[in-house]
Amino acid sequence: MPETDNQKTYNQIAGQKVQRIEAISDGVFAIALTLLVLDIKVPVADAIHSEADLIKTFCGLTPRLLTYFLSFMTLGIFWTGQTVQYSYIEKSDRHLNWLSLFFLLFVSILPFTTAFLSEHIEYKFSVGLYWANIFALGVTLYIHWVYAERHGYVTLPPAENEVVSKAVKKRIVVAQTLYAIGAACCFISIYLSITVIILIQLNYALGLFTKTGRKK
Amino acid sequence: MPETDNQKTYNQIAGQKVQRIEAISDGVFAIALTLLVLDIKVPVADAIHSEADLIKTFCGLTPRLLTYFLSFMTLGIFWTGQTVQYSYIEKSDRHLNWLSLFFLLFVSILPFTTAFLSEHIEYKFSVGLYWANIFALGVTLYIHWVYAERHGYVTLPPAENEVVSKAVKKRIVVAQTLYAIGAACCFISIYLSITVIILIQLNYALGLFTKTGRKK
Amino acid sequence: MPETDNQKTYNQIAGQKVQRIEAISDGVFAIALTLLVLDIKVPVADAIHSEADLIKTFCGLTPRLLTYFLSFMTLGIFWTGQTVQYSYIEKSDRHLNWLSLFFLLFVSILPFTTAFLSEHIEYKFSVGLYWANIFALGVTLYIHWVYAERHGYVTLPPAENEVVSKAVKKRIVVAQTLYAIGAACCFISIYLSITVIILIQLNYALGLFTKTGRKK
Amino acid sequence: MPETDNQKTYNQIAGQKVQRIEAISDGVFAIALTLLVLDIKVPVADAIHSEADLIKTFCGLTPRLLTYFLSFMTLGIFWTGQTVQYSYIEKSDRHLNWLSLFFLLFVSILPFTTAFLSEHIEYKFSVGLYWANIFALGVTLYIHWVYAERHGYVTLPPAENEVVSKAVKKRIVVAQTLYAIGAACCFISIYLSITVIILIQLNYALGLFTKTGRKK
Repeated sequence: MPETDNQKTYNQIAGQKVQRIEAISDGVFAIALTLLVLDIKVPVADAIHSEADLIKTFCGLTPRLLTYFLSFMTLGIFWTGQTVQYSYIEKSDRHLNWLSLFFLLFVSILPFTTAFLSEHIEYKFSVGLYWANIFALGVTLYIHWVYAERHGYVTLPPAENEVVSKAVKKRIVVAQTLYAIGAACCFISIYLSITVIILIQLNYALGLFTKTGRKK
Repeated sequence: MPETDNQKTYNQIAGQKVQRIEAISDGVFAIALTLLVLDIKVPVADAIHSEADLIKTFCGLTPRLLTYFLSFMTLGIFWTGQTVQYSYIEKSDRHLNWLSLFFLLFVSILPFTTAFLSEHIEYKFSVGLYWANIFALGVTLYIHWVYAERHGYVTLPPAENEVVSKAVKKRIVVAQTLYAIGAACCFISIYLSITVIILIQLNYALGLFTKTGRKK
Repeated sequence: MPETDNQKTYNQIAGQKVQRIEAISDGVFAIALTLLVLDIKVPVADAIHSEADLIKTFCGLTPRLLTYFLSFMTLGIFWTGQTVQYSYIEKSDRHLNWLSLFFLLFVSILPFTTAFLSEHIEYKFSVGLYWANIFALGVTLYIHWVYAERHGYVTLPPAENEVVSKAVKKRIVVAQTLYAIGAACCFISIYLSITVIILIQLNYALGLFTKTGRKK
Repeated sequence: MPETDNQKTYNQIAGQKVQRIEAISDGVFAIALTLLVLDIKVPVADAIHSEADLIKTFCGLTPRLLTYFLSFMTLGIFWTGQTVQYSYIEKSDRHLNWLSLFFLLFVSILPFTTAFLSEHIEYKFSVGLYWANIFALGVTLYIHWVYAERHGYVTLPPAENEVVSKAVKKRIVVAQTLYAIGAACCFISIYLSITVIILIQLNYALGLFTKTGRKK
C-alpha cells in the first residue's frame, strides 16, 4: 500500500518547527484580543445632544466593556498557559500541530461567544455557551501537554519534569473546576456567574492568593 | 540596456530572507482563521424573548458554524503544508517570494469564498467557487515546491530529498483528487459534497487512516 | 497547603520567553494600527454625481482622517516606548507578562476610543476618554519598566542602567504631563486640544526640538 | 537644559531592534492584505433565486475583485521592496523606526483607498487618491533607504553597497515614473489607467521583461 507509506512519511516530516506554531498562535491571540473591540459599537452622533447624553450613552456600553474585559482576561490566561507549555516543548509532530490548531480554533471563536454573551447577557444559554468555549480551551490545552509529554517533546531533566508537569496539569484542572462552579452560578444569577468568573480570572492574572513573598 | 541590468541585480538581491515569508504567512493565516468568525453574526436581541428562542436561533447558525469549521480545516491543512515545505527551504529568491504571495492571495480570499458558500449553501456555484479556491491553493503550493526544488533552495541530502519531495508532491495530488471528487458530489447533493470534503479534511488533520502505529 | 505550592511553582515557570511577549505585542499593535482604518467609511456611490461631489464628500472625512493620524501617532509612540524597554529586558516572569498584557489591553481599545472621538469630536467627554486611554498606556508602561528593573530583568551594566532608566522614566512622565496639558485645553476649545496633542506627538515622533546635531 | 539631554539619550537608546520593525511590518502587511477582502461583500441571499442569478451577481463583483487584485499586487511589491531593504539593514535608530512607521501608515491606509476606488471607480479623483497612496509608499521607502545608507546602517562591503544601493533607488524611481504615467492615463480612460497600473505591477511581480536567463 504505497499511500499508507506516503502518509507515514508525511507524518514524520510534518510539524518539526515549533517556531511556526508559536508565530501563528501569537497572531491568532493578537487578532482575537483586538477583534473583541469591534463588538463595542460607538453610539452614533444623531441621538446625542449634550455631554450628559454622551456620558449616559457611554455608561450604556457597560455590559460590552464588561464582556470585553472578561474575554481579554480569558485570552490572556490561555495565552500564558500555552506560552508556558511551549517554553518546555522544543519539537513537534503533525498531531501536536493539529492539537495546537484546534486550541486556536477555540481561541478564534471566543470573539463570537463573547459577542453572543454581551448581546444576550440575560440568558443562561449565553453563559453556558461562553463556559463551553473556556472548557474547550482547557481540554485542548490539557491534551496538548499530555500528548507532548508522552511523545518525548518536553525537554526537561526527569526530576524537574515531574514538578513542572504536575503544576501545568493541576493548574488546568483547578481552573476548570472553578470555571464550572462559576458557570453553574448562573442558575442563581447571571451577573453573579459573570462576577465569579471574572474574580477567578483576576486571581489567575494577578496571583492574588499566591503568597509568593513568604518563601522564596 | 541599463534597465535590464538593474532588474537583474534587483532579482538577485530580492527575497533572500525566508523568515520574512514565514512571518507574513503566519500573519495572513492567523487573520484568515480569525476573520472567518466575523461571518458568524450574533443574532440581535430584539427577536429573542426566551431561552428556547435563543437556543433555536443559535441552532439556525449551524450552516455558518459548519462552513467556519470547514474553512478552519482547509486553512490548517494548507498552513501545515506550507510549514512542511519551509522546514526544508532555507533560501529564497524573488520568484519564490511571489509564488508565496500568490499562495497567500488564495489564503486571504478564503474568508470571502467561505462566506459566499455559507450565504448560498444551496447552490452548486458556491461549492464550485469554494472548490476553485482549494484547487488554487493546491496548485500554487505544488508549483512553489517544484520551483524551490529545481532552483536548489531545498536543503536535504539527495537520497532523503527524493523521499521528501515525492511525499510532498504526492500528498498534494492525492488530496486535490479527493477534493475534486468531493466537489463533484454536488451534482448529487450539496450537503453530501460538503460532508465528503469535511471527511477528507478530517482524514488529513487527524490522520485517521494512516496506521502510524504499525511500523515505526 | 498544596495549592499555594502549586501556584508558586507555576509563577516560577510562567513567562520566561520574552520573544512571545514581543510577538504578541507586535501583532496587537499591527492590528490596532490597521483597524483604525475600518473606522474611515467610504462614502456610498448613490449620493455622488460628479467629481466635485466626490471631492467634497472626501473632504467631509477630514475629522476621521485627523483622528486616524492622531491614533497612528499614539500607537507609534507607545510601540517605540515598549520596544525600547524590551531591548533591555531579556527575561520575564508571570507578573511582567500580565503587565504587558494590560498594556496591550489599552492598545487594543484605542481603535474604540479613537472611533468614539471621531464620531463625537465636539464633546469634551470624548477628548477626556481618549486622554484616559493615553494615560493608561503611560501608567502601565511606567509600572512595567519599574517592575522589570526592581526584579533584575533589565540587563545593563549598573552605570549605564541608571542613565537608561532615568531616560525611560523621565520620558514617560514628561510626555504624560504634556498630554494632560493638551487634554485640559479642551476646556478652551476641543480642536485646540487635539491640535496640541498632535503637536506633542509630532515632537516625539520627529524629535523636532531635540537638537541631536549640536553635540554628537 | 536637562530635557534636551534626556531626549538625546532617548534618541540613542531608541530603535536598535530591527527584528521588531520587521515583525510589526509583516503584521501590518498581513492584515492589510486580508482586510482588502472585507470590502468584497457577499451578495445577500434574498435577491437570488437560481444558479444563473448567483453567477450573474458574482460577475457583478468584478470591479471589487479587480481592485482587490490590484491592491494585493501593490502590497506585495512594497512588501518585497521593504524586505529587500531590511535584508541589508542590521541596525536602526529612532528616526529610521519612525520612517518605517510612516511607511506602514500608508500601507495600513491602502485598504481604504482601495475601497474608495472600487466604490467610485468611474471618477478620476479615486484613481488620483489611489495613485497618491502608491506615491507616498514609494517616497517613504526611498527616504528610508537613503537615511539608512547615510547613517551607516546598511551593512555591505563598499563596492557591493554601491551596486545594491543604485538598484534599490533606481527601481523605486522607475516604478514611480511608470505609476505616474499609468495614473495620468485616467484623463483618457479610467479603466485604461487601472489596466496600465496592473500591467506595471505584473511586470514587477513576475519579472516579465527581465531576461534573467541570458547571463547568469
